[in-house]
Amino acid sequence: MNREPKLFIISGPSGVGKTTIAQRMLEEVEGLTRSTSCTTREKRKAEIEDVDYKFINKDRFQALIEKDAFLEWAEVLGNLYGTLKKDVKVSLDLGQDVLLCIDVKGAMQVLKKEPKTVAIFIMPPSVEELRSRLLKRGEMRDELKKRIDLAEEEMGAASQYHYIVHNDVVHKAVNLVKSIVYAERYKNNLNS
Amino acid sequence: MNREPKLFIISGPSGVGKTTIAQRMLEEVEGLTRSTSCTTREKRKAEIEDVDYKFINKDRFQALIEKDAFLEWAEVLGNLYGTLKKDVKVSLDLGQDVLLCIDVKGAMQVLKKEPKTVAIFIMPPSVEELRSRLLKRGEMRDELKKRIDLAEEEMGAASQYHYIVHNDVVHKAVNLVKSIVYAERYKNNLNS
Repeated sequence: MNREPKLFIISGPSGVGKTTIAQRMLEEVEGLTRSTSCTTREKRKAEIEDVDYKFINKDRFQALIEKDAFLEWAEVLGNLYGTLKKDVKVSLDLGQDVLLCIDVKGAMQVLKKEPKTVAIFIMPPSVEELRSRLLKRGEMRDELKKRIDLAEEEMGAASQYHYIVHNDVVHKAVNLVKSIVYAERYKNNLNS
Repeated sequence: MNREPKLFIISGPSGVGKTTIAQRMLEEVEGLTRSTSCTTREKRKAEIEDVDYKFINKDRFQALIEKDAFLEWAEVLGNLYGTLKKDVKVSLDLGQDVLLCIDVKGAMQVLKKEPKTVAIFIMPPSVEELRSRLLKRGEMRDELKKRIDLAEEEMGAASQYHYIVHNDVVHKAVNLVKSIVYAERYKNNLNS
């Protein structure tokens, strides 16, 4: 591969299915690697330490913020989430494209710090469909309302992303995001 | 489809395989249509009138130039080639993406007139491979040298295209060009 490795962001409202899409991408696209985010939120049943997130406590997270160790970090509904600069750098230096699956606030920080980043927004088919997906995931009623309100706010940020993909049918959304990664790999640097 | 249809250009040196790639794209990508170029060169055995080209004589071609009817036109090795503005406009107005398979000079004109055009350069694996492909196509020795010289000059223009795809294996090149078209369809206008 005779080109500069790229940093890709998959982002979108909670419950939109961005994690599923990101996982499929990592399984199916050669030369694409992830960077596991850090979080202070509690581990959900199905989640695996160091795979889904690095689960760390608030003190440790604060110490890392003070050391300016994060490429991006954000507080979402009371919990902290962040991506370590060094995790991303190591992969890019190895010649791998990196895929970050992060929330909208985090994405905005990355775009500011690393303007060459390719940002993909995953849009729900509708707010109703998003509500039904969050309910299926077992969100509590209070939490649900907060997440829906946040989602509507986040959808307003879509215009700041390079690509917008609607997640109606997962395999179609995955194929589209794949196309975006492949196309970006063959983009001409001089003219992009 | 709730978006502005796009004009795509596939271009590259003679013999690079751009026509094959363009044909496969048109067969396999929904919502993508061609615009048949006009040419004054003689029809090759395998070519079909109105499918491969509109074969017209020099007088008619000159009259169309004078009427400013072409989106692009060029003289290549003594023959005139051109794309009619109205052919492209009709398809775009119908909501279809248009794929033009044209030479480098033509591509440069389109990019100047229609800066939103997405230009894809098809690069041969090597000049040696290009020579062998042209020989297989039955080019005469004199014509061959001219085409190779032209190809080397044309390859210098690749940097002005949005994407560069090497045509080593046809189906891989086709898949890449498909990815580019799909990705471009989901590009965010506000931020492209």
